[in-house]
Amino acid sequence: MDKRYTESLHEIYVLSQFVSKILCWEAAVSFISLEGNELIKAQKDIDGGNSKSGKKDKRKMIMGKGTSVLIQFIKDRLLYDITNKITGSDDSDLIKKVAYSFLSLLNLKDPDFEHLLQKVKEIVDSNEKRRLPKTPKGTRDFANEHMAAREKTSTTIVNVFKRHGAMGLETPSFELRETLTEKYGEDSKLMYHLDDQGGELLTLRYDLTVPFARYVAMNGLTKYKAYQIGRVDRRDNPSKVRLREFYQGDFNISGDESIEADFEVVKVLIEVLNEIDIGDYMIKMNHRKLLDGMLEICGVPNHKLRTICSSIDKLDKQSFEEIKNEMIEEKGLDAETVEKIGAYVVLKGDPLKLLSQLKNEGSEFLKNDSANEALKDLEKLFEYLKKRKCIEKVVFDLSLARGLDYYTGVIFEAVLKEGPTEACSIAGGGRFDNLIGMFGTKHVAAVGFGVGIDRILTIMEQLPKHDNQEIRGVETEILVSVLGDDKSLAIELVDMCWAAKLKADYIVSKRLSKHFDIAKQFRIPWMVIVGQHEIDKGIVTIANKQANVSKQVVMCDFVEELITLINTTTLL
Amino acid sequence: MDKRYTESLHEIYVLSQFVSKILCWEAAVSFISLEGNELIKAQKDIDGGNSKSGKKDKRKMIMGKGTSVLIQFIKDRLLYDITNKITGSDDSDLIKKVAYSFLSLLNLKDPDFEHLLQKVKEIVDSNEKRRLPKTPKGTRDFANEHMAAREKTSTTIVNVFKRHGAMGLETPSFELRETLTEKYGEDSKLMYHLDDQGGELLTLRYDLTVPFARYVAMNGLTKYKAYQIGRVDRRDNPSKVRLREFYQGDFNISGDESIEADFEVVKVLIEVLNEIDIGDYMIKMNHRKLLDGMLEICGVPNHKLRTICSSIDKLDKQSFEEIKNEMIEEKGLDAETVEKIGAYVVLKGDPLKLLSQLKNEGSEFLKNDSANEALKDLEKLFEYLKKRKCIEKVVFDLSLARGLDYYTGVIFEAVLKEGPTEACSIAGGGRFDNLIGMFGTKHVAAVGFGVGIDRILTIMEQLPKHDNQEIRGVETEILVSVLGDDKSLAIELVDMCWAAKLKADYIVSKRLSKHFDIAKQFRIPWMVIVGQHEIDKGIVTIANKQANVSKQVVMCDFVEELITLINTTTLL
Repeated sequence: MDKRYTESLHEIYVLSQFVSKILCWEAAVSFISLEGNELIKAQKDIDGGNSKSGKKDKRKMIMGKGTSVLIQFIKDRLLYDITNKITGSDDSDLIKKVAYSFLSLLNLKDPDFEHLLQKVKEIVDSNEKRRLPKTPKGTRDFANEHMAAREKTSTTIVNVFKRHGAMGLETPSFELRETLTEKYGEDSKLMYHLDDQGGELLTLRYDLTVPFARYVAMNGLTKYKAYQIGRVDRRDNPSKVRLREFYQGDFNISGDESIEADFEVVKVLIEVLNEIDIGDYMIKMNHRKLLDGMLEICGVPNHKLRTICSSIDKLDKQSFEEIKNEMIEEKGLDAETVEKIGAYVVLKGDPLKLLSQLKNEGSEFLKNDSANEALKDLEKLFEYLKKRKCIEKVVFDLSLARGLDYYTGVIFEAVLKEGPTEACSIAGGGRFDNLIGMFGTKHVAAVGFGVGIDRILTIMEQLPKHDNQEIRGVETEILVSVLGDDKSLAIELVDMCWAAKLKADYIVSKRLSKHFDIAKQFRIPWMVIVGQHEIDKGIVTIANKQANVSKQVVMCDFVEELITLINTTTLL
Repeated sequence: MDKRYTESLHEIYVLSQFVSKILCWEAAVSFISLEGNELIKAQKDIDGGNSKSGKKDKRKMIMGKGTSVLIQFIKDRLLYDITNKITGSDDSDLIKKVAYSFLSLLNLKDPDFEHLLQKVKEIVDSNEKRRLPKTPKGTRDFANEHMAAREKTSTTIVNVFKRHGAMGLETPSFELRETLTEKYGEDSKLMYHLDDQGGELLTLRYDLTVPFARYVAMNGLTKYKAYQIGRVDRRDNPSKVRLREFYQGDFNISGDESIEADFEVVKVLIEVLNEIDIGDYMIKMNHRKLLDGMLEICGVPNHKLRTICSSIDKLDKQSFEEIKNEMIEEKGLDAETVEKIGAYVVLKGDPLKLLSQLKNEGSEFLKNDSANEALKDLEKLFEYLKKRKCIEKVVFDLSLARGLDYYTGVIFEAVLKEGPTEACSIAGGGRFDNLIGMFGTKHVAAVGFGVGIDRILTIMEQLPKHDNQEIRGVETEILVSVLGDDKSLAIELVDMCWAAKLKADYIVSKRLSKHFDIAKQFRIPWMVIVGQHEIDKGIVTIANKQANVSKQVVMCDFVEELITLINTTTLL
């Protein structure tokens, strides 16, 4: 090989290395297409949208205008240089010169470069304006099948709640700030405050429990059983399963300090989880007073009980080593105390076995008033759960702490045993006997739980068996399908369906294939087809492909025939 | 009468006048009990709460602790003075001295007074903490029958929406601020902004239309028919029927610029209003382009069209005289222009009649492009409404403007003809062909409306015929009623009901009357009564007072019998 050629090749290689370093090509491209690449998207015209997470591949990313402008600039410049500046028949020389020409592009003092920058800036600006709108971080839209799935799940949950005599409650989406302060401990920093626009200080609700307590106190209630389905807002770090705004379903009983209320609440949770059919789960259970007693036994001073609880609460996400450091260095416990805590929090298992274990070796626990009281509560509760055949779902777990400040007795959390994601908490609750009293009227005991509806839906979406389930985003049964352009006729026919309370929609188009596409896309079983043939004869053709039905009936009373057909046709 | 006695009496009278003046007794008492007087309230123990407005009389106000402390202080002081300082057998002298002693209470330099003040301060402080919680201004809780009523109304509305092939949509309760700005014109000031907590600038959604448009744009949709039921927030002046947070039900069609879409939207609104049965209503209708044309004809310059629309929009609440001043003085129109506007905005009535009137005398309107286009739209729409027998609900009203900026075509508003309150708008909508395009992707036409669900519910609550309607706050069918204190037995029996998916609750009490009270209060039809007699014989008594059923069945399989009884019993 010609030496000069090799040299040139080497030179070009060095140059290209240099160029790529300076340009940081990828970074530059992503900068320039930054706004543009969200501009998407080759989606079909007629579509209800598809916000399914994990199906982003459906959307084609296109690069922003900025990129093509840059490429065009380079092309133009090289072409100009090649045509006007670079002469010589030697190929290797040509390549070399092109390479130098390419390099000169980066001369910041070149007026052309200034011109390029200006152009890119304009495009970035216009992209900014044309930028695709977004939802706020950690929030999402729910549409179509997702909405239908949520409706189904919510209905199942509400039916369980109603079966237990709970009444519907709905509190505002924000509360006076004073209502929410000093209720959530370390989680308080996650609250969304409203802007002070002159008036009251307001905060979006963080859960449905405190608003329930506020409602009970405000109305001077005692015995009250209520459910609430609603959205709560938390400025948490969002993830695929952790949204910043999500639906919870709450079930609470106030004015009943008996363990029977604790049992009912746990029973309701078990019924909910069984009926929504989300897979195998367990209910971790503990008692705040047992936790307090345990920490006292370990030597934790009284004023640190709550903050140490918060540390223990992190055990499902962090190792004991991590929270050990937190407890010693941040919260000032001594190593011996922490070691003792470490020995206790690993205890978990069969409720009645662990309970008798704690009571046997129990001198320590039985001598502590708080722990002793807790063990008595748990014993009664476990007995109920055993008698009513729910105990096999329950795991007695001394590491369960529940982050929120307001719990006072039994606490529990439902966790999926297996699932598409890591073990995942989907519901939690417990007794909060002092919360209603904090609103200053009278002491009213209470117990309840909240179930994370959106988290359940997100998990369900990922379950293989739910992938092809028969949830439709739309309930339309009949597609009035007019071939041609007579919209007036379509309106007349579809309105006759609506008048008979049938779920109907219409399409007017000359292309028959489009009609069938729509019917297929939305899985609409019945079509009322009207083409020129039908118009001439004053009839319509009623068709159901799946049931192999095709019948011509007189137009003026097709609805009656249609209803008969719907009622008598069994799907294949 | 002894003169001295009379004198003393007079003196006491003067003193008491003096005392009452200084003390401003009432004011003082109300000051001291200020916080306490909200502490209420002798309500029955077992109750689901009653948040009905206008029933405040049910609650007994009690005076705050401060009052009793003050009275105790006065008593103590007088008693001390009488025992220790006041001597003498003369009654009148005694009275006089007591009076002086009473007066000396007000000596601000007396250390006791300082002590009293301190005490009252402490109590006011603690009352402050113990103050009854509230919901934010303009918001309310919904509970029990109210929730049941809303559920019923929402279901009715959603069923109509689904019948028309709309898919469910749910957008977050807040949006990026940039999504909402420049959409609402003068109403923008009513938006609730979230605090800037470091991150995105967020605002609670003001309506469901802009989020719908944002969703359509973000997902690149064209033809899309969706409904959304959700809460919106407006920092408006709250009133009994105007809340700051309220439910809306939105129905929107995008990607269809034909008048048939306008017709469908109006038709859906009419079906909704007919099916929720709220009484006689009318739908005022107009067209933004007709309004623009009309204002152009009157001589309003182009850049003032929107702001003059806002003035005209107030005509349902204000007289023309008032908005006349606004248009002339604030918005700088000349008097002649305003007079012309005044002559037009009184035009309203039968759609087809008024339409042909505008077209006849119409030279003016027909010569104006914008108005002419509008008249053509309206003519087609009115024809459809006439053919589909909806026209009698519609009033063509040239004063209808709709406040929001985003409307571009047909606009309409549903108003109750008569009701407990003043004529009241309960739904509104129109065509907004440019809104989706404002999010910068492509132009997508759209038309839709929103119905004010909470306003409808508030009005319904006031309708006499709905006063005693059969809406129950709770759906419980069976009350397991254990006489005595065996909660374990009650749990066992009620859990058997739950297992059979029956709606059941339980009560354990020695007083039989309490059992019947609960059944009556919650209108629970069936009771499963277990007293000592039943326990001894291993049976339960199934009773339904209204149906005159009372049957004793074996305890271990009472559920089967109960189901049979429920299915075979017809209520009297």
